[in-house]
Amino acid sequence: MATPLPTAPPVPAQASLKDTALGALRGVGQVDFQASVWTSLVILAALWAESWETGLFAVIGAVVSTLTARLLAVPRDTLGQGLMTYCGVLGAIAMVVYLGNHPSTYVMAVAAALMCTLVTATLNHLLAPFGLRAFTGPFCLVALVMVLGAPSFERIWHGTPPTAVTPETPRSPVVSWTDLWQGFFANVSQIFFAGTWYVGLIMLVGLFLAGWKVGVFTVVGSVVGLLTAWALGAPAALIGQGIYGYNAVLTSLAFGVVLLRPTVWNYGFTVLAAAASTALTASLSVLFATFGSHTFTWPFNITTWALLAAVPLLPRITARADDS
Amino acid sequence: MATPLPTAPPVPAQASLKDTALGALRGVGQVDFQASVWTSLVILAALWAESWETGLFAVIGAVVSTLTARLLAVPRDTLGQGLMTYCGVLGAIAMVVYLGNHPSTYVMAVAAALMCTLVTATLNHLLAPFGLRAFTGPFCLVALVMVLGAPSFERIWHGTPPTAVTPETPRSPVVSWTDLWQGFFANVSQIFFAGTWYVGLIMLVGLFLAGWKVGVFTVVGSVVGLLTAWALGAPAALIGQGIYGYNAVLTSLAFGVVLLRPTVWNYGFTVLAAAASTALTASLSVLFATFGSHTFTWPFNITTWALLAAVPLLPRITARADDS
Amino acid sequence: MATPLPTAPPVPAQASLKDTALGALRGVGQVDFQASVWTSLVILAALWAESWETGLFAVIGAVVSTLTARLLAVPRDTLGQGLMTYCGVLGAIAMVVYLGNHPSTYVMAVAAALMCTLVTATLNHLLAPFGLRAFTGPFCLVALVMVLGAPSFERIWHGTPPTAVTPETPRSPVVSWTDLWQGFFANVSQIFFAGTWYVGLIMLVGLFLAGWKVGVFTVVGSVVGLLTAWALGAPAALIGQGIYGYNAVLTSLAFGVVLLRPTVWNYGFTVLAAAASTALTASLSVLFATFGSHTFTWPFNITTWALLAAVPLLPRITARADDS
Repeated sequence: MATPLPTAPPVPAQASLKDTALGALRGVGQVDFQASVWTSLVILAALWAESWETGLFAVIGAVVSTLTARLLAVPRDTLGQGLMTYCGVLGAIAMVVYLGNHPSTYVMAVAAALMCTLVTATLNHLLAPFGLRAFTGPFCLVALVMVLGAPSFERIWHGTPPTAVTPETPRSPVVSWTDLWQGFFANVSQIFFAGTWYVGLIMLVGLFLAGWKVGVFTVVGSVVGLLTAWALGAPAALIGQGIYGYNAVLTSLAFGVVLLRPTVWNYGFTVLAAAASTALTASLSVLFATFGSHTFTWPFNITTWALLAAVPLLPRITARADDS
Repeated sequence: MATPLPTAPPVPAQASLKDTALGALRGVGQVDFQASVWTSLVILAALWAESWETGLFAVIGAVVSTLTARLLAVPRDTLGQGLMTYCGVLGAIAMVVYLGNHPSTYVMAVAAALMCTLVTATLNHLLAPFGLRAFTGPFCLVALVMVLGAPSFERIWHGTPPTAVTPETPRSPVVSWTDLWQGFFANVSQIFFAGTWYVGLIMLVGLFLAGWKVGVFTVVGSVVGLLTAWALGAPAALIGQGIYGYNAVLTSLAFGVVLLRPTVWNYGFTVLAAAASTALTASLSVLFATFGSHTFTWPFNITTWALLAAVPLLPRITARADDS
Repeated sequence: MATPLPTAPPVPAQASLKDTALGALRGVGQVDFQASVWTSLVILAALWAESWETGLFAVIGAVVSTLTARLLAVPRDTLGQGLMTYCGVLGAIAMVVYLGNHPSTYVMAVAAALMCTLVTATLNHLLAPFGLRAFTGPFCLVALVMVLGAPSFERIWHGTPPTAVTPETPRSPVVSWTDLWQGFFANVSQIFFAGTWYVGLIMLVGLFLAGWKVGVFTVVGSVVGLLTAWALGAPAALIGQGIYGYNAVLTSLAFGVVLLRPTVWNYGFTVLAAAASTALTASLSVLFATFGSHTFTWPFNITTWALLAAVPLLPRITARADDS
């Protein structure tokens, strides 16, 4: 109480208003591992092109999760790069997709974004000793429990909205040309719960703005996702909606651009990881359907955590030195 | 065989008979984080007031788990504070609640208490590097697998007992005054599977005996649990039985009294954590109902592990220095 | 590109062709923790005696997982002892058991063996800080997700094969003499998905070849499994097929031979662990049946991880010094 200045424990350098605003914006691009402001703006425009609800809830999520981190005195560097924000963006969109656009859903979106920020701190603390990062795991955890619990509460549950229903699709694995090219773009947009091909196209443009390598590994991930799903015989209708490929895009960006050094072996490992995440999508969909939840980006997170944790014992595969 | 004294590895200072007896008693209070002998005695009386089965199985659990720890040479300080005992208390009560009062259930209660002691060592070893503790996780794990497996075994399964059945309740979220005041006390007793309001009242008196702050945060937790469940629209009948609030009481005691320093920000974090554990109760109930298990105190454990692990990366929230 | 020799990071000493071949062979014995070439040969013969599919897929798994490790430059010592191989052996057999003998299953067996090698690196990296090892966890994880996802893919799913169906068995816990002696041997062979008693007998001979202590703890595990399942009242038909005892055999070998020092207390702990793994088998079978997967050797892994992680806090139980 009467201790001399400075008091302990010192709170680290705080983000200014501008840092905070930039962090909120960059959080949109950080879903795809990109801190570029231009990429974030283009992706945000694509979300509004999908629907005004998607765009609005993305903004709510970005603002609330960034402010939560600012209030809790998260250091300026982490905050300003959008690293406490990206899960909140996805978490808030998930609320409107799975609960529908009701007044109570706005409250739930705020709660989801707030919890996403806290759980981002949780996972980064727990995973750091193993050389891993949270990725979109915090969003997956928060969305999992909120979607699972929502139907128990009368004031927030108003029936399953149309956006949350996966329509009965024919099981035929015969892929048409339309399935292929629409799936190629939808693989990029489904990361944000958007299945419209031109939304994916706009996002792909945004990712190329972040660098040619980013764009190329987005393309590689989408193609590997398509090929793997086709080779295994997944339903063509789901392939065309990007359901089987969005995790491959994230996994390809993670290993190809962010996590590993640029070697031929590592690029092979990246393709393998993207294919594995595609196959895992089916397993996790069956698992979550059993108790009434959804796949989200679990396949990407689980594949990337598992294969990245293997790297230290596989001398041929080489991680980047920690420059993050 | 012929090595000179002292032999290696040395077994640490062992608990005397008195230490062991005190450990068994304190284990009752340690369910609520209290080492006070008086608190433990009052809570034990409340358990006998609930029913003689609840009281007897609590005693069996306390004795067996403490003796197990003593046999395995757990150091005197840990043992005498009841820190290897509290999960066994809950584990043994869970057996009579979910298997019914049959001769075989006494054998299962002994097995549950023994395994709770072992798994307490497991979780404390695994969680220590992350700055976390076992809490009641060992009880949750042991009870989960024993309740899940029991119906497969003819000699220990005699049909679902009435105590294990959650009656069909109306889904109405309209809370009556009776729901509220009975729920307020039942939130305290449901920690021990007791839904009777005056059992919770006796326990609350016991908790105030451990210190005014302990009593106050029990009240805070119970009120936050009631308010959160009401605001979300949980079934009023379940609120009145304490089903939605007992995890909030434990979470409030954990953050408000044990884990964090006394600051305004930390008290706010405590209220947030208690509310989160209430909401999580619905999610986990749906999850466990899918494969035939129960919620136990999982919401408290998961919430407390998750939010405590976030603290090192949130400078505004400050943990107590390790004085445990 | 133009850096002088030697380039960094250096790849460790690589396995010769002979090391690699020995690693593939020893991987068969390493399922039971044995590096003995003779034990591996006898177990391999037993697998061919079960059926040519079982034998062939074991060979495919051993070769593919060892070559994967060799390609990824796993150090010679690890590779040559079969420590990157044993999970692939089980993973490939699981594919033919749960998918049936179709051309696509050979592709899946290669994929399973490859992923088993990667996930072995993953788990060994993640568990090392806690003093634990991967055991057969990588096989359990890979088989879990592949069996779960397979029915979603038209090109690899051809209906449930007869080998994957657990027939409706009478629930009677009355054990006949035939159940007992056949179960005694089947407990050894079910580790490899083989329920035939003489396959287990051949394997038991192979395990005695690795040392009398190895044979004795195989016998101890099988007997403890039989007694525990009988005492709890498991269906006699399942006891006779080894369903309730194969995890006890692995757990007994792990604690009795590999992990703990030879003391009376530790042998008691080994028996307790084997009994616990038997009881856990029922819980996990119920859990996995809910969403359409299988028990594999999860009970062994979970029991052994949990109880081994408890050892550092239980001074009476003493682990071997790390000589691995």
